[in-house]
Amino acid sequence: MKAEDEIRALVADWSRALERKDTEAMTRDYEDGAVLFDAIPPATTKGRDNIKAAWDACLPHFPDTFRSEHRDLTIIVDGDLAIVHGLHGFAPDPASYPSGQTAMRITVCYRRSGGRWRVVHEHVSVPFDPTTNKAVFIQAA
Amino acid sequence: MKAEDEIRALVADWSRALERKDTEAMTRDYEDGAVLFDAIPPATTKGRDNIKAAWDACLPHFPDTFRSEHRDLTIIVDGDLAIVHGLHGFAPDPASYPSGQTAMRITVCYRRSGGRWRVVHEHVSVPFDPTTNKAVFIQAA
Repeated sequence: MKAEDEIRALVADWSRALERKDTEAMTRDYEDGAVLFDAIPPATTKGRDNIKAAWDACLPHFPDTFRSEHRDLTIIVDGDLAIVHGLHGFAPDPASYPSGQTAMRITVCYRRSGGRWRVVHEHVSVPFDPTTNKAVFIQAA
Repeated sequence: MKAEDEIRALVADWSRALERKDTEAMTRDYEDGAVLFDAIPPATTKGRDNIKAAWDACLPHFPDTFRSEHRDLTIIVDGDLAIVHGLHGFAPDPASYPSGQTAMRITVCYRRSGGRWRVVHEHVSVPFDPTTNKAVFIQAA
């Protein structure tokens, strides 16, 4: 499989794990020292275990069933590094569920070691309006 | 010069260009098709010219003199890709100036072509509080 296809498969696997709220599977492909800049505080989360714990704390706020969808994905690979950027959104059921009201910009950086790609850094956000300091939501789909 | 040192020098050059509000120099090392996820809208800015225009629109809101400072920088290089993540802040003069009240998480991805590193993707943000939808500022220094 080409490296770009391997990365695309990892992103899809992550979405399926998120949909079943399986935080162990979601963070299996993270380096022990991965650094997350998440959409919500804290500003920085360091380490696979802490990233898993953040998801464990977050997912109870999600509906029982939803779809995880990426769009506008760009994948850049060279050597043992890969960069993915694009948008990630939820399609919650019901659609009006408060946790599904924005897509987010995502940047996910992978490093290959021993033939296996793992996330070394991830950045997830929405912009804010500097005149109100309010988050500016992104059309979810 | 080692690749990591080359990247560190580019980041420092960018800070000096920002301090003199020289948007041409700030975006000289961006690919024509670079994609920016900025801290403020729009959610996505595509292309070096549009990234330069965003800075041209933003910098009049900055004080005449300030310092641009990075901290907690991690630089990861392999092949012709480099990833920088950390915090970027302003030290405005006066210190109370409204545009200098938060540091930002930055992820900057470089691609080397013809021996020259250029930014292919950049992501800049602060987190937001999901209970208020307000931006959560990061201690600036």
